[in-house]
Amino acid sequence: MEPRLGDISGPARLAAAGEAISLEELALAARNHGLPLEALRYDLSPPGLHYVLTHYDIPAADPARWRLRVGGRVREPLTLDLDALRSFPAVTERVTMECAGNGRALLSPRPVSQPWLVEGVGTAEWTGAPLGLVLAAAGVGPDAVEAVFTGADHGVERGVEQDYRRSLPLPIATGHDPRVLLAYAMNGDPLPPQHGCPLRLVVPGWYGMAQVKWLREITLTATPFTGFQQAVAYCLRQEAAEPGEPVSRIAPRALIAPPGFPDFMSRTRVVRPGLVRLEGRAWSGHAPVVRVEVSTDDGRSWADAALTPADDRHPWAWRGWQHGWTASPGRHVLGARAHDAAGHTQPLDQPWNRGGFANNLVRRVPVLCVEDGSLGADTRKP
Amino acid sequence: MEPRLGDISGPARLAAAGEAISLEELALAARNHGLPLEALRYDLSPPGLHYVLTHYDIPAADPARWRLRVGGRVREPLTLDLDALRSFPAVTERVTMECAGNGRALLSPRPVSQPWLVEGVGTAEWTGAPLGLVLAAAGVGPDAVEAVFTGADHGVERGVEQDYRRSLPLPIATGHDPRVLLAYAMNGDPLPPQHGCPLRLVVPGWYGMAQVKWLREITLTATPFTGFQQAVAYCLRQEAAEPGEPVSRIAPRALIAPPGFPDFMSRTRVVRPGLVRLEGRAWSGHAPVVRVEVSTDDGRSWADAALTPADDRHPWAWRGWQHGWTASPGRHVLGARAHDAAGHTQPLDQPWNRGGFANNLVRRVPVLCVEDGSLGADTRKP
Repeated sequence: MEPRLGDISGPARLAAAGEAISLEELALAARNHGLPLEALRYDLSPPGLHYVLTHYDIPAADPARWRLRVGGRVREPLTLDLDALRSFPAVTERVTMECAGNGRALLSPRPVSQPWLVEGVGTAEWTGAPLGLVLAAAGVGPDAVEAVFTGADHGVERGVEQDYRRSLPLPIATGHDPRVLLAYAMNGDPLPPQHGCPLRLVVPGWYGMAQVKWLREITLTATPFTGFQQAVAYCLRQEAAEPGEPVSRIAPRALIAPPGFPDFMSRTRVVRPGLVRLEGRAWSGHAPVVRVEVSTDDGRSWADAALTPADDRHPWAWRGWQHGWTASPGRHVLGARAHDAAGHTQPLDQPWNRGGFANNLVRRVPVLCVEDGSLGADTRKP
Repeated sequence: MEPRLGDISGPARLAAAGEAISLEELALAARNHGLPLEALRYDLSPPGLHYVLTHYDIPAADPARWRLRVGGRVREPLTLDLDALRSFPAVTERVTMECAGNGRALLSPRPVSQPWLVEGVGTAEWTGAPLGLVLAAAGVGPDAVEAVFTGADHGVERGVEQDYRRSLPLPIATGHDPRVLLAYAMNGDPLPPQHGCPLRLVVPGWYGMAQVKWLREITLTATPFTGFQQAVAYCLRQEAAEPGEPVSRIAPRALIAPPGFPDFMSRTRVVRPGLVRLEGRAWSGHAPVVRVEVSTDDGRSWADAALTPADDRHPWAWRGWQHGWTASPGRHVLGARAHDAAGHTQPLDQPWNRGGFANNLVRRVPVLCVEDGSLGADTRKP
């Protein structure tokens, strides 16, 4: 029988009503991983806790032999090794990065892809060469309009064989808000394999699809790039035939560091009656977070949380918040909602689109409040 | 309404026929994570690629204030900080660690718990103080029969509130085959939070449930420990009422580093016609791997793979293997099967039990072999 590509690589689809998570979605969830939400306690997410999404395989890479080629509409094509990149002024940015598909598996109907709940996020300090300086060294051609970034990650997606490849308009690529980096270090160490070793793009404030990992080529083009990851994937559409609006900056979101302790299977949180300190993080790729509201009654009422002081050094990093809650025995549903300085906030109804992108619906957090000793204790302790 | 524990913490159960993955199972898969199988290429799995399974939450831990208490049936109870533990002779062991539930989600019927496919594995070098020396310093009481290990991970499981707690018989705890470690370093660095920072137990050759993380207490007891994680969970049972056989050492398994490149959604591998070098790793907690067989025709025939030379320095680490395969256009199913020196191998029919433990059924790896250019290429490249 002839090999049929359609058997292994189908078009994007929506799950049917009531269709549960498939083994294919599970396979993605088992490979990639989110931030366990208790890790919201760390200002910087260690590499193994920061979210990871790999489209194809993590490539084998030898940093000593890695080369970045810069070409296309430039005056002088460059081939740069890591030492050459390190010879540019090093810039470090603390960045909260989030997968564009974060929240996808909570949508109804559910777009079938990497099935994130809300854990597709992390914050790290990335160190690298400013992209603008590297492009200036190559000399931006007068007709260049975009920079196209090619990673070493290779595979098939929705029937199309490809290297992972994304573009940025030149004003973004060479701008200062955000400053785009060619990053070779994460939290002061060389990049781990799953975060793009040895080189990745970092576009602060943008969703993860822009942060091309295992970066091996930058091509300046005279026309906008219309490759798969730019024009097919990562666009907001209600209908499949729409051109769609490209996904770019991160919509605001607040998450609660889960209070108390969990049940293993349901992950429901258990707290004791009395004062419970709620805390978490909030972020937005559009502008700094200026307000976080908290609800402890499933959204019927909201109160302002206290924010940690604004830190001008880290405009692209999440901001901490705290809120005191007096828990009484019973079941409760908590929620948190971020607002940024540009007037964006989180919706209370799902912002649905066919790709399942940018779903920043307020997350409901069920909590059971019980007296100490009311749960069956492991009395068989030594 | 009275809070009902049963609403948040139910008994163990099996999925119904045709019941797909639930959101609860997905939530576990999103928090915990497996080894992306291309990472089989690394002798040592970096922290973010090594599998992680946390029963409850990753505890907040301050290494400077961490204390290990050693008590119970000892002559002199001890309270040890990390410096005290580092004052014992440091031992480093390279260990392949695997979750006891690895393979669970492939069982039929499927036990509902952390839904591993086959990625729940990793290899690291763990450095620490030999447990036997620490117990000798405390003085093992004449009536002590077991050592009980308590972690700081706290939660509810199947209706029982508990700290994560497991035991070892004293002959295992103080023995040399394997040598049990109180580990404070992973691959030469302090433990990352998700791997037990600042201290964990490492029992080479045993499944992950024995490797108690965030270790804060060791208690020698005069009777065998019968706590939840020892006598309820982690036992092989066909019927719920059986006492069951405790899970201990890792059953043999071989995995293939996926050849070629993947389809994003189905994860099916794509290779070109011609010679394809298959390689992977194989391990067993009973004895060294002495043979790996490979099938490229869905198990109809098997051929011996070439093994990397045995390395006496690392008896508890996986062993590499390679096999040449001449791929022809079409669909193929690959498989690999490990044999250890003690005569254990992998079954060709699922070794089912209610907990879904130790499922080392040979993994089927579907591959599509096509000529270059037969997949739709991303022609819109720059």
